[in-house]
Amino acid sequence: MERYFEDFKTGDSFVSERMQITEEAILAFARQWDPQPFHVDPAFASTWTFGGLIASGLHTMAATLRLWLDLGVFRHCGLGSPGLSDVKFRRPVRPGDTLRVETAITDHRPSASRPDRGLVKLHQVTRNQRDEAVLEQTTTVFLKRRPG
Amino acid sequence: MERYFEDFKTGDSFVSERMQITEEAILAFARQWDPQPFHVDPAFASTWTFGGLIASGLHTMAATLRLWLDLGVFRHCGLGSPGLSDVKFRRPVRPGDTLRVETAITDHRPSASRPDRGLVKLHQVTRNQRDEAVLEQTTTVFLKRRPG
Repeated sequence: MERYFEDFKTGDSFVSERMQITEEAILAFARQWDPQPFHVDPAFASTWTFGGLIASGLHTMAATLRLWLDLGVFRHCGLGSPGLSDVKFRRPVRPGDTLRVETAITDHRPSASRPDRGLVKLHQVTRNQRDEAVLEQTTTVFLKRRPG
Repeated sequence: MERYFEDFKTGDSFVSERMQITEEAILAFARQWDPQPFHVDPAFASTWTFGGLIASGLHTMAATLRLWLDLGVFRHCGLGSPGLSDVKFRRPVRPGDTLRVETAITDHRPSASRPDRGLVKLHQVTRNQRDEAVLEQTTTVFLKRRPG
């Protein structure tokens, strides 16, 4: 089924599948992109504020994006994003945590400048296996309008 | 030299080294985290709005974070970030682009609740080899205060 901008509305919501964040994945992501000691050095991290290794916030954002995309909601109409706002790292993500993403459409309007597209705002909450929010963010996505 | 919260002030600014974003890196990042066709399929991307493959915005954020951390400005006092705001993907990042990051401290204050830490806000602009802004964002970072 091909869905377009017109097939969505404010208030629509979606829940992703789950992704486990292993220690190996935390270390691999952080060594490449965020090599701060509390993300790459388990011995240091055990002495630090959170009492153990925690995932880079950007890793949690990446997992959130992948879980959302794998739902395929905008697969036929997504035209990319001009940005995000209010990205909040609510709680640490630790080795073995399992994440899922709740997404709600909070704004839905035609583009003022481009008649072939609309935009939606998505509020996303990423939760761990105890249903605690670990990440909240708002992202804007451009969507194709139905042709004709 | 160990620098603490007290060693920085609003208005301080820093410029990173450079990182080239190859097509291989764009594809590798996007296949793992952001497998939308304009990030993973060069043939599709050549027919699309931007006329070619573009990097995931999250990849540009990751490169920005790594370039910033490699400067080592907060190496001895950085305590992590509670989040980001106003992340704007200004222009596409294409294969072969070379990025650098300009960072300015826009806020600097002691924590109201934790006497051992302060917080700074950083405004970051990531530019390509033509000095065009490709990403802008604001991030908050907690810093250790000087002991004693």
